[in-house]
Amino acid sequence: MRIALGITYRGTAYKGWQSQPGGGTVQDHLESALRRFAGQGVRTICAGRTDAGVHGLNQVVHFDTELQREPFSWVRGTNTYLPADIAVQWCQPVPDHFHARNSALGRRYVYLLRESPVRPALETGFAGWVFRPLDVEAMRAAAAYLIGEHDFSAFRSSECQAKSPVKVLREITIRRQGAYWRFEFEASAFLHHMVRNLMGCLVAVGAGNQRPEWVQEVLDSRDRRRAAPTFAPDGLYFVGPRYDPAFGLPEVNAALDWLP
Amino acid sequence: MRIALGITYRGTAYKGWQSQPGGGTVQDHLESALRRFAGQGVRTICAGRTDAGVHGLNQVVHFDTELQREPFSWVRGTNTYLPADIAVQWCQPVPDHFHARNSALGRRYVYLLRESPVRPALETGFAGWVFRPLDVEAMRAAAAYLIGEHDFSAFRSSECQAKSPVKVLREITIRRQGAYWRFEFEASAFLHHMVRNLMGCLVAVGAGNQRPEWVQEVLDSRDRRRAAPTFAPDGLYFVGPRYDPAFGLPEVNAALDWLP
Repeated sequence: MRIALGITYRGTAYKGWQSQPGGGTVQDHLESALRRFAGQGVRTICAGRTDAGVHGLNQVVHFDTELQREPFSWVRGTNTYLPADIAVQWCQPVPDHFHARNSALGRRYVYLLRESPVRPALETGFAGWVFRPLDVEAMRAAAAYLIGEHDFSAFRSSECQAKSPVKVLREITIRRQGAYWRFEFEASAFLHHMVRNLMGCLVAVGAGNQRPEWVQEVLDSRDRRRAAPTFAPDGLYFVGPRYDPAFGLPEVNAALDWLP
Repeated sequence: MRIALGITYRGTAYKGWQSQPGGGTVQDHLESALRRFAGQGVRTICAGRTDAGVHGLNQVVHFDTELQREPFSWVRGTNTYLPADIAVQWCQPVPDHFHARNSALGRRYVYLLRESPVRPALETGFAGWVFRPLDVEAMRAAAAYLIGEHDFSAFRSSECQAKSPVKVLREITIRRQGAYWRFEFEASAFLHHMVRNLMGCLVAVGAGNQRPEWVQEVLDSRDRRRAAPTFAPDGLYFVGPRYDPAFGLPEVNAALDWLP
């Protein structure tokens, strides 16, 4: 049978999601905990790989097993063997044609940014930081150029393994609460470093270093060297994937209420 | 001249506020950074000592110095030598009769608590956790018994160094946002472990293990053994002191907007 799990993690201490020979990734910890609970090796496939330092709110994985256990046993049992900053939040059986990556119809990310003259301390690792005031209208104008189906090669890292640089960016919303800016992104899928590269460009426009139209020029160039530097991973959260509601999987996580 | 600083810190990695011979406290790091910036030893006095793992949003300290520097130089210069999870947020000259501890008219704390069947991961160290649903009306009824001037010996740790166990608890507010409970406490001053002991009792009532009136009995007993166990430090934030507005010191901090 095929099982789906929803995972929340703080990315600060880990070398990103994907397993590495030396260990130290979130997937390594998850699969080790599943192996200890299940008493057998389990290979997981995730909805979206995250980089070192990036947090996951509702990362979804699937795996196949012959073990018969109550869904909540998978949650509680696996969490016993996970470090304090990684936790399985839910477990649901899914049909065999469900695939955590291939079934995802879209993915959502949030970037949190503190704007203040002084650097943050409490929220280090949980928010990016700018000391220059940002112009929200300029950033929204820049964001509008990015919406739709485009070749996002200019916002793609050289290590990106995606087959195609063409993605559908469905929405960018930008709002402010107190000292914190919250950027939300939804797309069919994201290229490697795409959100952090988009953030670099939006902040360059917000701080007045570039005009909003410049983002269109960067996009059209398909040239990574034209874009702003990749923004810090600190404030980046993979909110999670969206699936056909027929699968009945939870789309949000309590931890989303944690963010400003 | 006398200088006041506002400090924000994440308490997770430190052995509390107060200097220890072996170092490793927030005060040790602050005074080391001040010494490197000022080129001379500086002794600070704080508004409220915090325990290991407790966070500070607007901790206030004062010290005396003959150095003439612009206030923002103290902020930026000291922050250069502080770890990423401690930062000076503001600096202001104050009159010689200002005293960070003795001039404080009140102090505020916030406790954040996640209520969910599954343990948190993202916010580990930043929130306590209960898996049983809490009854807000029962907790508010219990809190009402605590408001006013009382002998809080039942909520005081055996290591408390305060001269008197009599304090004025001015306000307890309890509200919920999504999966998070936020408890706010304001008092003339707090005894050692007082907020964490109050939290233990309020949660015992909220979870239905005790009636609200039991809190009155615990208070009247003045006996620490009657109260619930001390709650975890993880969700505890020292919001900061209140002073006579004539001093003109900032009372809040951008990081307060970070909390749910």
